[in-house]
Amino acid sequence: MKVQLAEKHGFCFGVQRAIDIAEQHPNAKTIGPLIHNPREINRLKENFSIEVIEDAEQVGTIDAEALIIRTHGITKESLQNLQGKNKKIIDATCPFVTKPQEICAKMSEENYQVVIFGDAEHPEVKGVKSYGEGVIIVKNADELKKYKLKRRVAIISQTTKNIEDFQKVVDALIKISTEVRVFNTICNATLENQEAAYDLSKKADIMIIIGGKNSSNTKQLWQICKTHCQESYLIESREEIESSWFQDKQLCGITAGASTPKWIIDETKNIIEKI
Amino acid sequence: MKVQLAEKHGFCFGVQRAIDIAEQHPNAKTIGPLIHNPREINRLKENFSIEVIEDAEQVGTIDAEALIIRTHGITKESLQNLQGKNKKIIDATCPFVTKPQEICAKMSEENYQVVIFGDAEHPEVKGVKSYGEGVIIVKNADELKKYKLKRRVAIISQTTKNIEDFQKVVDALIKISTEVRVFNTICNATLENQEAAYDLSKKADIMIIIGGKNSSNTKQLWQICKTHCQESYLIESREEIESSWFQDKQLCGITAGASTPKWIIDETKNIIEKI
Repeated sequence: MKVQLAEKHGFCFGVQRAIDIAEQHPNAKTIGPLIHNPREINRLKENFSIEVIEDAEQVGTIDAEALIIRTHGITKESLQNLQGKNKKIIDATCPFVTKPQEICAKMSEENYQVVIFGDAEHPEVKGVKSYGEGVIIVKNADELKKYKLKRRVAIISQTTKNIEDFQKVVDALIKISTEVRVFNTICNATLENQEAAYDLSKKADIMIIIGGKNSSNTKQLWQICKTHCQESYLIESREEIESSWFQDKQLCGITAGASTPKWIIDETKNIIEKI
Repeated sequence: MKVQLAEKHGFCFGVQRAIDIAEQHPNAKTIGPLIHNPREINRLKENFSIEVIEDAEQVGTIDAEALIIRTHGITKESLQNLQGKNKKIIDATCPFVTKPQEICAKMSEENYQVVIFGDAEHPEVKGVKSYGEGVIIVKNADELKKYKLKRRVAIISQTTKNIEDFQKVVDALIKISTEVRVFNTICNATLENQEAAYDLSKKADIMIIIGGKNSSNTKQLWQICKTHCQESYLIESREEIESSWFQDKQLCGITAGASTPKWIIDETKNIIEKI
């Protein structure tokens, strides 16, 4: 099978930075998974004894010198809580996530209605929301109707969202608000991966999207690929690949989410080439 | 011929206010035409001796106690110039135009790149632009490419523009800016007239749009009507009506720009009903 990688794919700046930080702090604990890729989390555990604490409340009772804050950030309250625990705190929050946290705080202080375009359950969004007062989260323009908004609105996007979907929410806000302050907090790396996936999916007969199934940006890539290439599969590891997918196909395109390490992409590529 | 008026049409708040102000000040001069309707301007001249000074520079040499500033406003420089002339100045600038002037000044002071969505030659836009530094004017998203913009942008719309077109420019800015402050300065009356024209044009066989041919909001109504009703005619007065237009038509819809007085609408409606 002929295989082509998307021109841009895989690790973004923030994820690479977090992995580097973690490797420099063996035996540390991370608050929640450092990045959204279970296999890479497992590698850090096996090679660097870095373990995940799922619940920040457990921190006090846990034996670890250093605590690493994940790329997606944590809530303001959790951070304050950690700071009281007499442990070393290492902040691996992606700088592109710190930015919307700051914007949320500032706009809220200036009495704007802060709206986050994102998934309410995503840890990044929970973290950003915690920096403001009365912040609302919407997944699409329709959800705005559920709220009585202030006349002056500030809108932030989850970093891994699609810009066209973000624009639709902004367009709806413009119609009903006196002022809308739009902060395009969508990460460039996400956009670049999306654009490259889009281009490749137009010519590929089958697309393999590699990434964590809990990863927002990976799911976005999958959505984008599906619009042009019906046979698009999201996988976490090579074990999920079925050779029947490739029957009568000429070109297999591969892309990967921002949390997918090169070693996982390489092993997948090698297997498909041999089909 | 069966005739139906659009549910909302004609005079807006700002125009009615300006006419009322003018009628209370007979013998005054207006700087430029008070509103964009030549026939109403003529009525004010005949009944109230209110004349138009086309060039603000002439003011010093003209014999008039009171000067009226038109609904569209004038430039900051022209206003300062007038204030030195020792004449009574009556401001009939529509409050919905004063607002974008203020926003332009404030955003420019705060070092935002001010963008006006509008027609560079329109007096309202010229006036608003004069309140800021380095302000650019675009008619559509494509024109943004001509400029090197600051990363933080504030955008204002000419009050009589169409909101969908405004949104397109905002969408383009979101992609290339760190922050976009969107001020929806489109006037509600304009929107309401547009929505009513849209609804009526879908069921009418012919649409008559009454208004000044130099009126931005009238031209917008014409554009909107044409998308659903191919036989849409923009007229300034009943003399332009041709009976052949109405052949084999059942329903004639009528709408009118924000500067079109009721007496012009009535005379047009009467004539068409008799066809």
